[in-house]
Amino acid sequence: MATKANVLLIGSGGVGTMATYALQTGGKADVTAVLRSNFKVVSENGFSIDSVQHGDGITGFKPTQILNQVPSAKEGQAFDFIVVTTKNIPDIRPNVADIIEPAVTPGHSVIVLLQNGLNIQVPIIERFPTNAVISGVSLIGATETSPGTVRHDDEDVSKIGVFESPKVPRDVAVAAAKKFVDIYNACGKVDCMYDEDVPFTRWRKLIYNTSYNAIATILRMDTTRMRISEHVIDNLIRPAMLEVKAAAKAAGVNLPDDICDLMIRIDPNDTYWKPSMCQDIEKGNLIEFENIVGEPMREAEKLGVATPVLKTLYGFTKALQFQIMEAKGLISPKWEKDSKYA
Amino acid sequence: MATKANVLLIGSGGVGTMATYALQTGGKADVTAVLRSNFKVVSENGFSIDSVQHGDGITGFKPTQILNQVPSAKEGQAFDFIVVTTKNIPDIRPNVADIIEPAVTPGHSVIVLLQNGLNIQVPIIERFPTNAVISGVSLIGATETSPGTVRHDDEDVSKIGVFESPKVPRDVAVAAAKKFVDIYNACGKVDCMYDEDVPFTRWRKLIYNTSYNAIATILRMDTTRMRISEHVIDNLIRPAMLEVKAAAKAAGVNLPDDICDLMIRIDPNDTYWKPSMCQDIEKGNLIEFENIVGEPMREAEKLGVATPVLKTLYGFTKALQFQIMEAKGLISPKWEKDSKYA
Repeated sequence: MATKANVLLIGSGGVGTMATYALQTGGKADVTAVLRSNFKVVSENGFSIDSVQHGDGITGFKPTQILNQVPSAKEGQAFDFIVVTTKNIPDIRPNVADIIEPAVTPGHSVIVLLQNGLNIQVPIIERFPTNAVISGVSLIGATETSPGTVRHDDEDVSKIGVFESPKVPRDVAVAAAKKFVDIYNACGKVDCMYDEDVPFTRWRKLIYNTSYNAIATILRMDTTRMRISEHVIDNLIRPAMLEVKAAAKAAGVNLPDDICDLMIRIDPNDTYWKPSMCQDIEKGNLIEFENIVGEPMREAEKLGVATPVLKTLYGFTKALQFQIMEAKGLISPKWEKDSKYA
Repeated sequence: MATKANVLLIGSGGVGTMATYALQTGGKADVTAVLRSNFKVVSENGFSIDSVQHGDGITGFKPTQILNQVPSAKEGQAFDFIVVTTKNIPDIRPNVADIIEPAVTPGHSVIVLLQNGLNIQVPIIERFPTNAVISGVSLIGATETSPGTVRHDDEDVSKIGVFESPKVPRDVAVAAAKKFVDIYNACGKVDCMYDEDVPFTRWRKLIYNTSYNAIATILRMDTTRMRISEHVIDNLIRPAMLEVKAAAKAAGVNLPDDICDLMIRIDPNDTYWKPSMCQDIEKGNLIEFENIVGEPMREAEKLGVATPVLKTLYGFTKALQFQIMEAKGLISPKWEKDSKYA
């Protein structure tokens, strides 16, 4: 690439910060980072990072530009890549499409969704039919421990591939994905791979996320205790995983036979790890249940796969979102005399 | 009855206190009450009661005798009735059979289980095969607002019937149940009925308890909000109720077609009522999930009725009990290297 890629990166948690660092220090990208809660701190002092791959004691790191809102695309300065690392909460406006809209140059900006869940590309492709939409599945362990300070303690492995979009030729999208892999890997420290089979990668990750994230959130329980109790694995986690596996199969994705046993044991036991959705509810944050529980359930339904456990998990996580929304003042539940259940 | 019945009453919450009051003031029973948390207060000052049926401002009420532990049966002073109004937590020792054992005179004491749930009689009949075991289903609204102080704000309606026991002739058990109805009603203020069909009464109440109690507990949500959200009713409460109804049917109990719609709407909407199991978990108390969720599920399984929703509710409530037990110091979950899920 002759000139540096003009990258807009939205979302500044652990994943977003480490992506900003890798892209900017690789030298093949100028990163404009859109920050929220940590905007002031990072504008003044830069990020502080302890990283298992980039080194400890990094201070004062700033990308090319730091903004506190999504900029509008300007002529001659279009963003080549718009990387989204925010939570994906489609049940709340503004949703991801709303958030990125001002920055998108139709037919040009490549939209990279570095987010969990199924069918996250659907509303993006609908809104931006002429832009390539790229799947990013990150396996990084990185946490923002206080505003602007990130502890990156597990390797940054990410898989970048193509979401099929009717109006974008596949070779254009593939080239865009491979270019993103190139600029991400330019720092020489991380392991970003081109992903030939995005549905496989996403369904594989859902085996963990749909089960452990939802059940940990409903119970506020770490995954070590689930394995200690055994019954949480036997009566909740495994039945949920088996439904996701069956839905994947019906969608043409054949996951390995031992995938559930592998995912059941994938977390270390000495850290009493709480999955991210559980961390979110404990902080009072909205939860990403629609793409992590709702979409696999709906996909299964379309394909004729019975998912009674997922339906129940969906019912509970949607009810928890209702409570979080009330606590945040986004809704004010009031009893009405003409209610459906009056 | 020539002489007064010698009644032992174990459990001193709202239900237990109002039963003590009705039995003692009716004049056909001498009640020995076994109290725990409120023993000291009530020994000194008696109970304070505001009652929708017995009157407001009752103070200093004491039954014939107040004890702080279950007494041993003494020759010539056997208890005619042992009434149990404690929570029923069979997964913890001492269980109900353990608790009442010292007071039971084999072949004589009639054991009245004024408790919720299915199959609560099974361990009692096993331990005390020669004693009549009586079912009590109470619909009272009574709450102990502070130790020894009870607000009784909804009518005391109870149904008393027979649990079949192989070694106790049915006519003996029926006579015992009817005698209990007589001494309970003697105060002239309450509505205690002989129940011809205990399975019907218990399964009917389970339609509410298995669904609303478990789901409210898992979500810490009142039933008014569930009806406001609608989706909690549609996606959780009704599916659970339908499984209980199907299980009841397989057990030979035909509940009315409209039972679910009736139970969905049975609570007032202006009180934002949290079912008792939800109140328990919010107080850090152990929960009665085995007889309210586990037994209907196991009964359904035996009868070939699929209950995927109940199985999931059971998984969650059992996991919550695990957390409550840990918080109470009853268990100390530790990861072991040779664990099943290592």
